[in-house]
Amino acid sequence: MQSDNKTAAILVIGDEILSGRTREGNAHHLSGVLSAVGIDLKEIRVVADEQDLIVEAIRALDSTLGGRYDLLFTSGGIGPTHDDVTADAVAQAFGVGIGMNEDALADMRARWEARGVTPTENALRMARIPLGAELIRNKVSAAPGFHIGNTYVMAGVPEVFRAMVEAILPDLPTGRPPISESVDVHRGESLVADDLKAVAEAYSDLSLGSYPWHRDGVYGTALVVRGLDPARVSAAMSDLKRRIGV
Amino acid sequence: MQSDNKTAAILVIGDEILSGRTREGNAHHLSGVLSAVGIDLKEIRVVADEQDLIVEAIRALDSTLGGRYDLLFTSGGIGPTHDDVTADAVAQAFGVGIGMNEDALADMRARWEARGVTPTENALRMARIPLGAELIRNKVSAAPGFHIGNTYVMAGVPEVFRAMVEAILPDLPTGRPPISESVDVHRGESLVADDLKAVAEAYSDLSLGSYPWHRDGVYGTALVVRGLDPARVSAAMSDLKRRIGV
Repeated sequence: MQSDNKTAAILVIGDEILSGRTREGNAHHLSGVLSAVGIDLKEIRVVADEQDLIVEAIRALDSTLGGRYDLLFTSGGIGPTHDDVTADAVAQAFGVGIGMNEDALADMRARWEARGVTPTENALRMARIPLGAELIRNKVSAAPGFHIGNTYVMAGVPEVFRAMVEAILPDLPTGRPPISESVDVHRGESLVADDLKAVAEAYSDLSLGSYPWHRDGVYGTALVVRGLDPARVSAAMSDLKRRIGV
Repeated sequence: MQSDNKTAAILVIGDEILSGRTREGNAHHLSGVLSAVGIDLKEIRVVADEQDLIVEAIRALDSTLGGRYDLLFTSGGIGPTHDDVTADAVAQAFGVGIGMNEDALADMRARWEARGVTPTENALRMARIPLGAELIRNKVSAAPGFHIGNTYVMAGVPEVFRAMVEAILPDLPTGRPPISESVDVHRGESLVADDLKAVAEAYSDLSLGSYPWHRDGVYGTALVVRGLDPARVSAAMSDLKRRIGV
């Protein structure tokens, strides 16, 4: 699909995904959000909670560090425990220091005071932010995410991740959201492949995909046309339907 | 967690994951299987159905091509349509040719004949296999996956992916599966972080993780100890429980 939209990657940090304990959901949530606002997600990576691996991935993915994509979104590793090393990794990747952020600290202290809780030293670790980064404040957690270079660093806890995504959305360089049309046919992929290819060639500005499925013993294929121009997408879908006779 | 287990990566190929249309499930399934047989999954990547990107990822991840991990498992892009480019990408990454595989063709023809179906040219594309690769036959689909170098190429359709995983499992270089113990505590992560860190330092051969959750308005943290030696894992968990008083 041709587009001038910004490109993006998501970096998920978490042993619990790699061990199979947790099914990743944050990248799936964000992928839908990015698609809806016209940012082209090109890659997702999941790495362990190890500082060197995180540093390397950030450098490979954030264009301000010579990486491949316009924008990078991370999930996970910014909590209060010993295995939360994302903030240090980001500081290292960007070659900046890290220290207590007074604004983050004030937010967190206010939240705790309202609850009558005395913060632990460990909780305060969540106010350690790479120097020069902007905070990502959000509705759910007083502990913020942060934004440095083209990298947006967010929490792994799904409710907090979603709140942080909501918080950054107004500031993202949005583009033209693709629209899609789809049709289900009750036949195998290989029987529609010729027609799909012909339409894909005639509409090279669009993206055509086919996704086989089976439900309750019935087999079929979902055919999806995606693109930026609704009229082109409709025309391609009409052409496709006519060719396959549905 | 210290281990002599083989390391692995999963490469998921599919625009439908990146667009948010489909929630990825194959990597989650395989991550649990690998954990259970003592293979250490270190990275998951999702890239689009673009040959160059797939080639680059394979080279970065398969140790036989100078990549980082002992084993690489791929999902997706081996169907009959124009956007199925994984087999060509694998051939390119390994610097080998690609052609019709007679064994794959025979399997597929037999399946079609049994159903009274005449195969299309496109369906036959699924018998195009990089030269020198071994087929991954499976119970669900006559169209095979294949294995070349340390890379196992499997289908994206979940039922077929799972059948292919089952087919390769007996041949994988399995290791010592980690075992884990977990306990839920009704307090925030920052209140257990000191105890968690102390135990992590005392048991540096183990992996300790903490995963905040909330359900029905109740907040808590799951504490997980993982390692290869059940006695060490139990000892660390007892120590942790004693420290936090549960």
